[in-house]
Amino acid sequence: MSAAESALRVISEHGCFGGVQGYYEHDSVECATPMRFAVYRPPQAATGAVPVLWYLAGLTCSEETFPVKAGAQRLAAEYGLALVAPDTSPRQARLPGDDAGWDFGLAAGFYVDATVAPWSAHYRLYSWITRELPGVVAAHFAIRADCQGIFGHSMGGHGALVCALRNPGQYRSVSALAPIAAPSHCPWGEKAFGGYLGPDRSHWSEYDASELVRRRPRDDEMRVDQGLADQFLARQLKPELFVAACRDAGQPLDYRAHAGYDPGYYFVPTFVPEHLAFHARRLAGPRTAGDDA
Amino acid sequence: MSAAESALRVISEHGCFGGVQGYYEHDSVECATPMRFAVYRPPQAATGAVPVLWYLAGLTCSEETFPVKAGAQRLAAEYGLALVAPDTSPRQARLPGDDAGWDFGLAAGFYVDATVAPWSAHYRLYSWITRELPGVVAAHFAIRADCQGIFGHSMGGHGALVCALRNPGQYRSVSALAPIAAPSHCPWGEKAFGGYLGPDRSHWSEYDASELVRRRPRDDEMRVDQGLADQFLARQLKPELFVAACRDAGQPLDYRAHAGYDPGYYFVPTFVPEHLAFHARRLAGPRTAGDDA
Repeated sequence: MSAAESALRVISEHGCFGGVQGYYEHDSVECATPMRFAVYRPPQAATGAVPVLWYLAGLTCSEETFPVKAGAQRLAAEYGLALVAPDTSPRQARLPGDDAGWDFGLAAGFYVDATVAPWSAHYRLYSWITRELPGVVAAHFAIRADCQGIFGHSMGGHGALVCALRNPGQYRSVSALAPIAAPSHCPWGEKAFGGYLGPDRSHWSEYDASELVRRRPRDDEMRVDQGLADQFLARQLKPELFVAACRDAGQPLDYRAHAGYDPGYYFVPTFVPEHLAFHARRLAGPRTAGDDA
Repeated sequence: MSAAESALRVISEHGCFGGVQGYYEHDSVECATPMRFAVYRPPQAATGAVPVLWYLAGLTCSEETFPVKAGAQRLAAEYGLALVAPDTSPRQARLPGDDAGWDFGLAAGFYVDATVAPWSAHYRLYSWITRELPGVVAAHFAIRADCQGIFGHSMGGHGALVCALRNPGQYRSVSALAPIAAPSHCPWGEKAFGGYLGPDRSHWSEYDASELVRRRPRDDEMRVDQGLADQFLARQLKPELFVAACRDAGQPLDYRAHAGYDPGYYFVPTFVPEHLAFHARRLAGPRTAGDDA
């Protein structure tokens, strides 16, 4: 264990569905500032290592949003899954203009490694989440590092798809709820990528799931759920571009559209049980052909 | 339907577990100010009237706390129960000092009818919740007015026990999570009752569950859950006084203490499934002797 990994600070811990919901902080090397994350340890973690499901949250959210609003601990306790929810941006290293809008800067890290100053000094969420934080979590919690899945919502759905498409061996399962599915082609993504990565769009494609999947499809099925009463659907989320890219690339995708659901935390908890089941079948449950039907 | 009942304003509505989570406002006659409340309509409400379960929230909470954090809609959709969550105080009629503390005034109505000025002009939560709001809800939603239960958390656990003990025919079932169980004998209750009801303690007993149950026990079993890592347990909640009063009065009580749980919204969602099942058996499910075992 490195010195950085050893320095984990407990913010708070709470009994929850027979396990423990905790909030932690460490000094991130990638982000060069303290970063926070949440871990739910299911009851099974008291007696052995358990698989891990990562959740990446959306714009304006923090590491608390998923543990407080999604209701996932109940099923994580049932399936024996740890849940890790990282914060959505640095908070303590403040940069000029980081609070000028809710869609860039604070709580809007977009899960990229920024290359444009001043953001490049701290906004390295991609490397933090895919490289540094897994080591920190493995060093401090009883988890199976070989058995991890990832999902997320909106900006975090984008992040989950990108992390999994770029690191197929690292994540055994991936799904998304209302993801920003083609960020190079929507106002949120254009603002974020332009600001963090610069105007040269050739640098954006490594963070665009609809472009990544054309080049590097996974060999397992992905799942995406989308509410049809979502005011961001046509202008910002554009799942049709991701669906088309998956079809063209031969990427198996279980895409489900739901009438009557807006994008918030009434939609997320409604479909969290199906997503937890989807991941549990790949991470924890018996593997039976056809059990996704 | 009276004019007051007819004036329901929709704040927002959201698809949720196949039903609709809504937020509403009406001009309360009792509180002489607009008051807000949340209603979850399960899928079954689309085709017929359903039983209603009321939830009263705790200090610092609003009508949004329970719908956002408790995860109850999943089970309400399964059982076919509507959920009603009223706000915890007036908000729009401001009074001097109503935000001086978090345990009195705003978000701290304590579910009483205040008799001391200036609070008596607006802080009439008891009559609002037990008399006025049931009519408003029945006038606008497909609910069974003859089939209602009530529960709550902390300050709202106190409120639920008091409403049910004073109106045994109105609520078929009652339970509480970490209730302020003997408010006349703890600092929170002494401050609230002193401020809203005045210094004469003889006026407090109608709002103290541990005193009410000695005089008017119910003929059905009540349920109370309490976390043992709750920092308010000994000084503010005092469930032992309520347990003793129930025992003395012959009131059936299923009291359950849980090691490792603090009072917040990790404890509440952990035990909400058991409370929903408790109420559903009495409101919606088949009534079989011994099915509470």
